[in-house]
Amino acid sequence: MNERILHARAYLSRVAEPPAAALAELVAEVGPVEAAARVRDGRVGERVAGETGVRRAVYRAGEDLAAAAAAGARLLVPEHDDWPGDAFEAFEAAGARELAPPLALWVRGPGALGALSRHAVAVVGARAATSYGTHVAGELGAGLADRGYTVVSGAAIGVDGAAHRGALAVQGPTVAVLACGVERAYPASHQLLLERIAAEGLVVSEYPPGSVPARHRFLVRNRLIAGIAGGTVVVEAGLRSGAQRTASDAVSLGRPVMAVPGAVTSGLSAGCHRLVRDGALLVTRTEEVLEAVAPIGLHLAELPDLGTARSTDGLDAAAARVHDALPARAARDTRWLALESGVPIGAVRAALVALERRGLVEHRDGRWRRCPVVEEPAPPARAGASTRAGGA
Amino acid sequence: MNERILHARAYLSRVAEPPAAALAELVAEVGPVEAAARVRDGRVGERVAGETGVRRAVYRAGEDLAAAAAAGARLLVPEHDDWPGDAFEAFEAAGARELAPPLALWVRGPGALGALSRHAVAVVGARAATSYGTHVAGELGAGLADRGYTVVSGAAIGVDGAAHRGALAVQGPTVAVLACGVERAYPASHQLLLERIAAEGLVVSEYPPGSVPARHRFLVRNRLIAGIAGGTVVVEAGLRSGAQRTASDAVSLGRPVMAVPGAVTSGLSAGCHRLVRDGALLVTRTEEVLEAVAPIGLHLAELPDLGTARSTDGLDAAAARVHDALPARAARDTRWLALESGVPIGAVRAALVALERRGLVEHRDGRWRRCPVVEEPAPPARAGASTRAGGA
Repeated sequence: MNERILHARAYLSRVAEPPAAALAELVAEVGPVEAAARVRDGRVGERVAGETGVRRAVYRAGEDLAAAAAAGARLLVPEHDDWPGDAFEAFEAAGARELAPPLALWVRGPGALGALSRHAVAVVGARAATSYGTHVAGELGAGLADRGYTVVSGAAIGVDGAAHRGALAVQGPTVAVLACGVERAYPASHQLLLERIAAEGLVVSEYPPGSVPARHRFLVRNRLIAGIAGGTVVVEAGLRSGAQRTASDAVSLGRPVMAVPGAVTSGLSAGCHRLVRDGALLVTRTEEVLEAVAPIGLHLAELPDLGTARSTDGLDAAAARVHDALPARAARDTRWLALESGVPIGAVRAALVALERRGLVEHRDGRWRRCPVVEEPAPPARAGASTRAGGA
Repeated sequence: MNERILHARAYLSRVAEPPAAALAELVAEVGPVEAAARVRDGRVGERVAGETGVRRAVYRAGEDLAAAAAAGARLLVPEHDDWPGDAFEAFEAAGARELAPPLALWVRGPGALGALSRHAVAVVGARAATSYGTHVAGELGAGLADRGYTVVSGAAIGVDGAAHRGALAVQGPTVAVLACGVERAYPASHQLLLERIAAEGLVVSEYPPGSVPARHRFLVRNRLIAGIAGGTVVVEAGLRSGAQRTASDAVSLGRPVMAVPGAVTSGLSAGCHRLVRDGALLVTRTEEVLEAVAPIGLHLAELPDLGTARSTDGLDAAAARVHDALPARAARDTRWLALESGVPIGAVRAALVALERRGLVEHRDGRWRRCPVVEEPAPPARAGASTRAGGA
């Protein structure tokens, strides 16, 4: 990698507070080295000056690169093969100021971001998650990682941490995108978790070493989570939450947004329910997530097991009615069955032959009685009664 | 009411096992009295014969009407003003054999079905409901009834019973549609509930007095629940359930289908989640149900309270960044704030003025410090950080 490019982008990364849309345009136009020189000398237009004027005298590219190296980190730039250019094209396409692409990314860990982002799903949600939320996040994290998908999240406590841990638990790929320097342990209680992600996956940040997690940076960071991933799953979120912002960014980037439902009595599922009402896909398990993010036909969610098959499954309507009409223990003749079921007597006879062949009824002394059936639900009432596959 | 019509329909109600599409067509064509005469004499085509041949010799109209009267019930027929003709038009429109309209309805209670069905919502679900399901069903039942909507359900244990009870608890209208005679207490444990519904609302059935709740009748009955109501809410349901059938019937009848989400770890919410994935509307509270069933503009669900407003709400981006940059307890000068926040120094000054006006910062000896703010969430992290209303 050209050292001048690396230094230029390190300098710009320090100078501009993301998102810096005008600066990104300048860099795309004249290249990072020339853009850095112009910024340093103040030879820029008003918009770029607004994004860089305050810190343009802060020359710390060398120190920042050295600090990164000392922390086991490095600067990833668009000129690297590793850069997730395909994923970030969506930022240019979105064209929104707040969705400016990153100028460079500080990364820590063995992972190659370009490859990791090719099959990646963001799993995000509330810090104040319930045990339900962390359970589901962990299951999704493990399920996605187990199928080779990178679990992208923000390393926050609650849902984020559970998603990362789920991926790590199956030795799967995971990427943490921080709102501070990659060498920082934030939140402090996630120090060990971040070390594990840095050892096995990748810790990523737009912010140079030493940067603190100021509040607005979390919102700005969320666009990177949405952008690196091919789709975003919100596991638990209040009506007013950062996860909603990630979801909103994902929509702007053209990525599918999914939400996990929960109890309507839980305020932490209210944000998820609102997302679904606003058009997000309701998902309940890994396969449904993959169905939404994977190339069509690759990961069709299979219908879950509908439970033990019943021996009365697949009976035609007349046979089912005749079988229903037979009392549990008493024997009845054909005529009685016709009257009780309302099925014509000829059809009752045919039904009884079919039922007998299935071992559901037996014939003795001119009368019919039920044989015990496998998985017979009692009493006969609605919830167990459908013989028709559901679905509205 | 013409006694001949009443007797003719009572006779047909006893003779034909619903749904009897061909018989319904014949009745529509020649009227109930002539249709009954033809059925009795066997002067009918093959399809009607198939629906009536077995029981056509059962002349019990007089006894059935007397039995109904003895049980405080009566026969409601399409020739009554009370008949919910508008609601049942959908059956003819659907044109499906299994969605044949009822020939008559046995009813018990003071309610007028036509009026009750004009603003009615079905609340249905699993018999084996969890406490969550019965809680939500009760809340919806009470909420809908409190707004004058009739709560229609099947009087089963679990969700159905909770919905009826919710309506009764607010002295609201409720209709129970049974799969057996209206004088029967089925399920037995709901004897008192059914008495209360019969005393204050209406118990309804297609089946003449004395009819037993055979299993297939529950499925057939479900179309009436869907048809009497202007929309159907499924509260809890397994993947294979009668409630799914009610929902499916509602779709065929052109009525909105709604489903209440729950934990993805609960098999009893799996049917609801599948409905939503298949196009049903996710609903979390009464207002959202009304929004779906009520004439447009009448019951727009209001956004729920987003929680206590924060004193930093509504700050512009620069002011928020400057405020973020100020440490919790230390004072800083303007230049430091510009460097830390990346906001140009002129904009920092303007931001500080705005922040001071709101009582968020104070100025002393050339430096700025934070004032304590109401509802300041700590630490500064994603879930509490949004200043942008969510929604994808």
